[in-house]
Formats: sequence, structure tokens, C-alpha cells
Amino acid sequence: MYKIAVDVMGSDDAPVCELSGIKLALEELTHIKVIAFGKKEEIEAYGLKHERLEYVYTDDKIIGTDDATTAFRLKKSASMIMAIQAVKDKKADAVVSAGNTGAYITAGLFMLGRIKGIRRPALATLFPTATKGKYFVFADLGAVVDATPEILNQTGIVGTQLAKIMLNIEHPKVGLLNIGEEDKKGTTLYVETNKLLRENHKVDFIGNIEPRYIMDGRANVIVADGFTGNIALKSYEGMQQTITTVLKREIMKSFGTKIGGLLIKPALKELKATLDYEGIGGAVLAGVKSPLIKAHGTTTSFQFSSAIKIATTFLEKDLVGEITKVLEKDTDK
Amino acid sequence: MYKIAVDVMGSDDAPVCELSGIKLALEELTHIKVIAFGKKEEIEAYGLKHERLEYVYTDDKIIGTDDATTAFRLKKSASMIMAIQAVKDKKADAVVSAGNTGAYITAGLFMLGRIKGIRRPALATLFPTATKGKYFVFADLGAVVDATPEILNQTGIVGTQLAKIMLNIEHPKVGLLNIGEEDKKGTTLYVETNKLLRENHKVDFIGNIEPRYIMDGRANVIVADGFTGNIALKSYEGMQQTITTVLKREIMKSFGTKIGGLLIKPALKELKATLDYEGIGGAVLAGVKSPLIKAHGTTTSFQFSSAIKIATTFLEKDLVGEITKVLEKDTDK
Repeated sequence: MYKIAVDVMGSDDAPVCELSGIKLALEELTHIKVIAFGKKEEIEAYGLKHERLEYVYTDDKIIGTDDATTAFRLKKSASMIMAIQAVKDKKADAVVSAGNTGAYITAGLFMLGRIKGIRRPALATLFPTATKGKYFVFADLGAVVDATPEILNQTGIVGTQLAKIMLNIEHPKVGLLNIGEEDKKGTTLYVETNKLLRENHKVDFIGNIEPRYIMDGRANVIVADGFTGNIALKSYEGMQQTITTVLKREIMKSFGTKIGGLLIKPALKELKATLDYEGIGGAVLAGVKSPLIKAHGTTTSFQFSSAIKIATTFLEKDLVGEITKVLEKDTDK
Repeated sequence: MYKIAVDVMGSDDAPVCELSGIKLALEELTHIKVIAFGKKEEIEAYGLKHERLEYVYTDDKIIGTDDATTAFRLKKSASMIMAIQAVKDKKADAVVSAGNTGAYITAGLFMLGRIKGIRRPALATLFPTATKGKYFVFADLGAVVDATPEILNQTGIVGTQLAKIMLNIEHPKVGLLNIGEEDKKGTTLYVETNKLLRENHKVDFIGNIEPRYIMDGRANVIVADGFTGNIALKSYEGMQQTITTVLKREIMKSFGTKIGGLLIKPALKELKATLDYEGIGGAVLAGVKSPLIKAHGTTTSFQFSSAIKIATTFLEKDLVGEITKVLEKDTDK
């Protein structure tokens, strides 16, 4: 029986999305228990009860404007911090929250600690390709903003373990996000990282990949530093959002295009399903001593249940143990 | 009469696109002369003649795989290099090419030299917003890969001059591309740049802007280092391409969606027109002593003529003089 600590106060629609997500997860996964941390009145108003669900009440919570680096010291009784503390105290095996990303990953890093040998944990998620249901692991999306070649090289190793577990691929192909394919392209950081990845026997490195090609699925893992990865992620989101806005506006402009818009609805639905990486449920801070899952702030119930499922999968397939093992094998490098 | 030196061997469809683009430009702009550099047989096969068009024949050309840093020394008789040389020798006032970007901007920088006070020229283009016909200046897109805060701060100044000239805006708003809006967000490079831009009296700095919001048009100039700017640009392109591919595929899947696809054609056309920043014609290497315009490798005739028009506008409005003037005013800083 795996125990998942869940902060139910983090999302934009907390605690409703979290609690209905927990309900879905408990129904589907009969081998998990959930300890939910949040405000008593709001939780009781929702009224979810389950034999494998336990509540810990707290009035305090981390908010969006809380300082990432000090929140966990100043707000020890916040739901997010108490959920992480439960994992630290071995009362739970993994933690899930949709709250303030900076505060969450900083608290997770400091409170849970790094796996031995990990320089800096990376924030990773599955990202979609043009083929529906085909994803790749994208890391780092913002945990390490000022990275080094050594950190990025290790992100390649950790990303490989994530792809094995999340995508069931035995030998994941690893690409380095860059502005050109040639090994010498990019900043000094990227030129040096390329060299290290070329020499790294623990990853199947296929070279630099430009952002316009990562969605064709040629790599199973895309490595970037946290700043660049976050810029790319938000650029994809920006263009997707812009296209949606403009297309909707233009379709509403005439009778003919409105009818056309109705007729292509199945195609638009498939497009959305193909690109909807948020359906994946969450990102993982890979490299800390217990699975820490970040759900999107705008999470739906379904996405939140999916985040709990990811936490469960990492426990079942022993993500932390696998990362530990591959880092220990430093002799075969 | 402005004289534009044009390399007609650079594009994927050279010299046809270039020559038909020159034809369009000469017809529209009666106050320009063009000196075209390229291969005699291919130019004669196309057969364009005009009283304000002069040819300089050369068999040599820069190709995509030529090394950016050495091409201009090794291939002095290449059409691109001879076109730049014509500007250097005061035989022409500006230069346009669709060839190898790296080789072109490196050659342009070394052969034409920097405007006094410019640390490193930036590659800038107009980029679309969700509002059709509304653009912003996006720089740097790849000229300076390892930047410093001082270089980025100056890109803010140069970008402001570009926005004044290209967008006819008297007081352009400048934003810094970043992963969050708070001043302390991003890498050390971005935190330091934010500080310098805040103190810079020559720009109207409105703060950090995330990539997902730049297309709403809140800033007239977006500043980034060449690596990050290029990553963002290619991420936008990647998502646009992916959405186009998936949507086409899904629309072709059933009779109903096919009919719908036909009906929404006007909307799709408007979408394309809104996002089509390539219609702008080219990017400019801002900060060298004469206007240097890079047309897209996949340029159309129309786009190429537009690149020649941009070169002409920069001459008319004295881009180089304006940049020189604003940099000289270092006392009011």
C-alpha cells in the first residue's frame, strides 16, 4: 500500500479539483492511501469520505506571491509544507501539489534532500509530439536556472531513467535543445554540455535538436537548462494560445466559417487531445529522495488524479532507486 | 537614389526568387538602384533587364555548410561577400541576401564594422501579435550567442530605434523576455539586464515578459540574448508547424471535417496572414555601419522584394545615423 501526501490547497480551484481528483485516483488505484492536507471547513464542505483517505487540517497555505526560497521556513504549517514534511517523516511515500511552483520545488529540495550523487534535481514533464499519445520527457523546465554542463549532463541521465519508467522505452534517445544541429552550436554552456553528453555512456545521445523539431518525436528525452526549457515551454504555449484565439475569432466572422467551425469540431478535438500534455497531470522534481509531483495550477480533477497516478507509478517502478543505481555505476563511465 | 547590393544566389530557389523580387522592388521603388551579384548563366537564363539594375557576375557562392567565421576570408569572390564588399567600398548603401545566416552576419560584422559605441550588433525582425498587421521588434535572434547584460541593455536601445523606424511609434515600450514577470526572475544574465534596463533612460522599459504573453502586443520591442531569442523563435515556429500538420491530418479524416475545412478556408487564410511574419521580408543586423538585411532562406519573390524595401526604409530614415545619435547621448544617462 503506497501512501501519497496531497496538498489540496494549491490549485486555482482548490480544494474542489484536488478532492475530486483524489476521489478518482482512490477509485482507480486500490493499492494507495491518501493523506490530504488542507483547510477543515473547505474540505468538510466538499464532504469526500473514503476508507483509504485521511485528512490533516491546517489553516495556513502557501500562496502565489510567497517567496520561493523562504516560504518553507516561514510557513511550516502550510498545507504544502506539511505534505512534504509527512514524506520526510516517512508517514507518506510521495507528495503531490498544484501550488506555487517555486516554493514547492525549493521546499521539496531542501526538506527531502537530493539523491546521493545528484548535483541539482531537474523539473521534468512529458511533452506531446505531433503523434497523438506519443510523448517525450522534457527536462529541466525551470528548477535550475543557472546551470552548468555537469548539471545538464546529469539531467540527460535522469531523463533517461524517467523515459524508461514513464514511456516504457528500454533505450531512450536523448537530444539536447539547441539553436542548431552542429555540435558547436549554442552558448558555451551548450557546447560544453554537448561534449559531455557525447562522452556519456549512460545515455544514448543523438545530438542537438532545434525547438522546431522536438515535436516530431525523434528524441525520447530533451535536455535543456531550466531557463531555456521554461522559455521554450512557454513559447509553445504562447503560440498554441495565439493560434486558438485568432482561429476562433476568424471563424466567428461569417456564417460560412461558423458552419465550417462546427463541422471541423472533431478535428479540433483531436488536435487538442494530441497537444494536451496537461492531461499527463504533472511534472516531477527528479533527483530528490522521494517522488515529488507538481500538478498544474489550472489543473482539472482528471489531471489531478493523473498526477497522483504518476506519483504511484514512480513508487511502483522505484524511480528513486533506479536513479540511485545508475549514478552509483560511475565506474563504467 | 539609393543603391542596394543584392546577393541573388542565397535562397533555396536562387536566383529566381531574388530576381523576381528585385523586379517587384524596382517597379515599386523608383528611387533605388540595384546591383545584383550572382552566376552569369543563371541570371541570363532568367533574363531580367532594367535601367536601374546592374549585374556583377561571379561563379563563387557561400553555401549552407560554409563555416560562418571563415567563409568571408576564404570566399572573397562569393556573391554574398562581393555584395557586402560593394557596400564597404561605398558602391552601394545597403546589402540584402537570403544566404547562410551565420556566414552573412559574421561577414557583415567584420567587413562593415560596428557603429561607434555598439558592443555587438543584434539580429532583429518584426514578429507578429494576435492582431493582424500589428508587430513588435524581436531582438536578438541569434547574432550574439554568449551575451552580457551590457550587450542586452544596448539591444534595448537599438531595438527602440528600430521600432521608431519600422513601426512608426514615437515611444516604443520595451520588454525583456524572461521566465517570469518579477525583476529577479531568470538567469544571472537576465537579472542583471533587468537592472540595467530599469536604469536606462533611453528606453521605456516595462519589465520582464513571459514568452506566452509577447504575442498579445504589450511591448513594441522584446529583448533577448541571441541564444534564447532563437530558441523562442524556433519554438513558436515549431508549435505553429505542429498545429498545421495535425489539423490538416485530422481534417482529412472524414467527409464532414473535409467540408468544414473548405468552409473555414477564409479563417485559416486570415490566421496565416496574421502570423506570417515572414511577409515582413527579413531580419536586420542592427549596429553595423550600413543596413544589412537577411531574407529568409525559403523566401518568396514578394518577401524578397519586401526585404529590399526594408533596406530602403532604413536608408530613408537613416537607421545608422539614429543609432549613432542615441549612443552619443551618453551624458543624459
